[in-house]
Amino acid sequence: DGTVSHASPAEILERISAQLGCSPASAELAVHLDGTDELGHLRGLFHMPKTTDLSPTDPGLVHGTEDCVYLAGNSLGLQPKKTKEYLDVELDKWAKTGVHGHTEGSRPWVCAENTIEEMMAHLVGAMVEEVALMNGLTVNLHLLLLSFYKPTARRHKILIEDKAFPSDYYAVQSQIRLRGYEPQHSLLLIRPREGEDTLRTEDILTTIEKEGDSIAVILFSAVQYYTGQLFDMAAIATAGQEKGCLVGFDCAHAVGNVPLRLHDWGVDFACWCSYKYVNSGAGGLAGAFIHEKHSGSVRPALWGWWGHDLKSRFLMDNEMQLIPGVGGYRLSNQPILLVCSLQASLEIFSQTSMQALRKKSVLLTGYLEYLLKRNFGHEDADPHKAHVRIMTPSDPAQRGCQLSLCFSVPVTNIFRELERRAVACDMREPDVLRVAPVPLYNSFRDVHRFVCILREALAVSHGHPQGALL
Amino acid sequence: DGTVSHASPAEILERISAQLGCSPASAELAVHLDGTDELGHLRGLFHMPKTTDLSPTDPGLVHGTEDCVYLAGNSLGLQPKKTKEYLDVELDKWAKTGVHGHTEGSRPWVCAENTIEEMMAHLVGAMVEEVALMNGLTVNLHLLLLSFYKPTARRHKILIEDKAFPSDYYAVQSQIRLRGYEPQHSLLLIRPREGEDTLRTEDILTTIEKEGDSIAVILFSAVQYYTGQLFDMAAIATAGQEKGCLVGFDCAHAVGNVPLRLHDWGVDFACWCSYKYVNSGAGGLAGAFIHEKHSGSVRPALWGWWGHDLKSRFLMDNEMQLIPGVGGYRLSNQPILLVCSLQASLEIFSQTSMQALRKKSVLLTGYLEYLLKRNFGHEDADPHKAHVRIMTPSDPAQRGCQLSLCFSVPVTNIFRELERRAVACDMREPDVLRVAPVPLYNSFRDVHRFVCILREALAVSHGHPQGALL
Ligand SMILES: Cc1ncc(COP(=O)(O)O)c(C=O)c1O
Ligand SMILES: Cc1ncc(COP(=O)(O)O)c(C=O)c1O
Repeated sequence: DGTVSHASPAEILERISAQLGCSPASAELAVHLDGTDELGHLRGLFHMPKTTDLSPTDPGLVHGTEDCVYLAGNSLGLQPKKTKEYLDVELDKWAKTGVHGHTEGSRPWVCAENTIEEMMAHLVGAMVEEVALMNGLTVNLHLLLLSFYKPTARRHKILIEDKAFPSDYYAVQSQIRLRGYEPQHSLLLIRPREGEDTLRTEDILTTIEKEGDSIAVILFSAVQYYTGQLFDMAAIATAGQEKGCLVGFDCAHAVGNVPLRLHDWGVDFACWCSYKYVNSGAGGLAGAFIHEKHSGSVRPALWGWWGHDLKSRFLMDNEMQLIPGVGGYRLSNQPILLVCSLQASLEIFSQTSMQALRKKSVLLTGYLEYLLKRNFGHEDADPHKAHVRIMTPSDPAQRGCQLSLCFSVPVTNIFRELERRAVACDMREPDVLRVAPVPLYNSFRDVHRFVCILREALAVSHGHPQGALL
Repeated sequence: DGTVSHASPAEILERISAQLGCSPASAELAVHLDGTDELGHLRGLFHMPKTTDLSPTDPGLVHGTEDCVYLAGNSLGLQPKKTKEYLDVELDKWAKTGVHGHTEGSRPWVCAENTIEEMMAHLVGAMVEEVALMNGLTVNLHLLLLSFYKPTARRHKILIEDKAFPSDYYAVQSQIRLRGYEPQHSLLLIRPREGEDTLRTEDILTTIEKEGDSIAVILFSAVQYYTGQLFDMAAIATAGQEKGCLVGFDCAHAVGNVPLRLHDWGVDFACWCSYKYVNSGAGGLAGAFIHEKHSGSVRPALWGWWGHDLKSRFLMDNEMQLIPGVGGYRLSNQPILLVCSLQASLEIFSQTSMQALRKKSVLLTGYLEYLLKRNFGHEDADPHKAHVRIMTPSDPAQRGCQLSLCFSVPVTNIFRELERRAVACDMREPDVLRVAPVPLYNSFRDVHRFVCILREALAVSHGHPQGALL
């Protein structure tokens, strides 16, 4: 309700634990929060790996075959239980009818991706005509940039975050070269201030204001893969467009994680993958968005028969009837198997809303942050004790569900001890751990277990005091 | 044996039926040929649709639930029985281990496509480093053309067949425009002589000789989708390269259909899909080939992280270590589900050889041609009787398994009558039927049944005399 949503996660957690008469660090609070979680039933729609099914698990360190602590949805989402059912339907159709599957059943292969684009559009805040499901993310990024990046001598730069995801970095580099420019001159990187981990919105906006006249395209991730920072997309789009730039977002880590309103924010173009928070399986079908305002003017640089109006596509007369907008960017026919797995996940999202998920997410990640800060903060009294710093912004409005943790000690041993205790999360050398409690299937109990196990892992690997959580 | 292989299919069929003491049109011959078919057991590795599972089938016109007559492998190959098993393994891995699937099992998702590229390379006559499995066909064609089509004022044309497959036509059109040229001036179409259906090799070579100096890229299909003509790839490649052109092939209808020797023929680049004769399912993983000779010189125009050397790909340091050759053209991570279905099919090919398949194919398609000519040829004595003309070259060296049939009467009714009798093949208005007996899973009995049913269909729809086959 309104009262609650204005309180910080910490305030909420302390209020509820006070009402329960328990410590905010107690398992009791986690159990209570799960009990009142209106989205708790969604976990049951996914296959949650068991402790003993994860190969690094040491069976002596876990309790039987309970659920593992899966906090790696930022890398690969869990499998919806319906995935296999939908795949089996199409395999069966193929086995029984061969080529007739192209036109029959609930997912006729000639237009299978179209049957789920409405759900996808909903998830990113777009109209269905603004969205196409196709290819992989980097492929789509290139198809979009070929239309949106048209450098001129005066305006030839692309602005991206320093330490952008490698594929985006390479994509932008190669697009600059393809157009006859040099990354050295045309690639503008924006980095955090000295001593800071994440970018300040004010600095982004100032850079756009100062450099905008020479910038052709601004390409940001929506949520940064490494730091977990959620950028203010609406502000960046507005600032960029005021300077005459085109503004695009890589939503790989944002879709299914935070509410997106690509249309309302006036974002020019966007792309995303579906195997992280959208749970479509490794290499799942990616998405692309082009704002309606460009549908009459921006045309694909590369054409293929799948960008031809479906009504006349199979006349095979070599007279292109290009679908307006992003639909015209389709090149090849789409894999039916990937439509099945994506559909299974999108239907779960359709049972709730990104608003409801976000509300839970803010509390769930806030809970993780709260317990981490209480238990593993830097202590002036004991500066050599291993401690954890959270790289991700503490303002919930500037992050999704992921927290990126920096350790004062090398992370390798900690990571190994976590894995031995059936925690799935991911590590980046030398000292970062990415932890993502996903509101769709993670529980407050998962977060509590993670923090308890982290305490053990620190105790074993770095002599951090063991004992009850604070 | 040597004696047999120099005889024409017609000679072989007549010799064998004489030995058997039956008519070449008798079911007995078909049964005998199936009995001596050394590849006959491969059919059992596929799901063959049953007559009554095809929706257009009229149950009153078929005998129980026997196999349908599936001659549509040129459009969509049948499903290998192992497909589901392999998919289930990976679904199970995903369900049980989540993100750990990236590095575990026999198809670690970070390099799953690499585990089957050797088999794919074998099928197209390439070294494994010359082949990449990725994306869809049209996407790959574009990625290749972005490197291979570098027009200059003197040499800016692309030569393709008139009536190339629409997607190839659109791809080439848009590539010409992307480079600032006009299809009107830069797209060179070569058409059959007046009154002929297919291209003569001599005419192709003459055109290359005459126009070659202005041609940047020659792009032919290996087997023409509409006419079924198999082009002389080695001759075209040599002729083109002698004139300084780069020569590529769209092998969509050739891979898995005819033996290919892309490496030995010195083909510069090629691409193909895998859902036709390679049986990977609708929208399956496509392939790309770049000849080894270019691995040091031709670089991808567009970059992505999947083109980065696997050994250092995940250091995420944004220092590109580009894989040499076609491997560097990878952009996005590949869908594991599509690797599974493709693997199931490639393993079947590995149980035999393209040479063995080709030997059967020449006889199988020759048998179809023989029966069609005997029964439905034009008759001077009765010029108004509905008859069939075969558009595909009658020289086995100039075709794969498909025959394209032209009818002297509108094909729509014939097609409907074939479908009512559980024949799967495909039709193009106004008068063409494409029929592909696939040596991997079709039998001589299938061909015989098809011809019998065609006779019925002609009788019912066009008053063609009914009765026993000749
Ligand atoms: C000759 C040819 N080229 C291109 C294509 C387009 O394939 P895709 O949709 O896989 O890009 C096809 C599909 O049937 C084809 O037959
Ligand atoms: C932010 C971001 N961009 C791009 C990619 C590349 O994705 P793909 O391999 O699907 O092209 C990823 C993959 O993790 C990503 O996280």
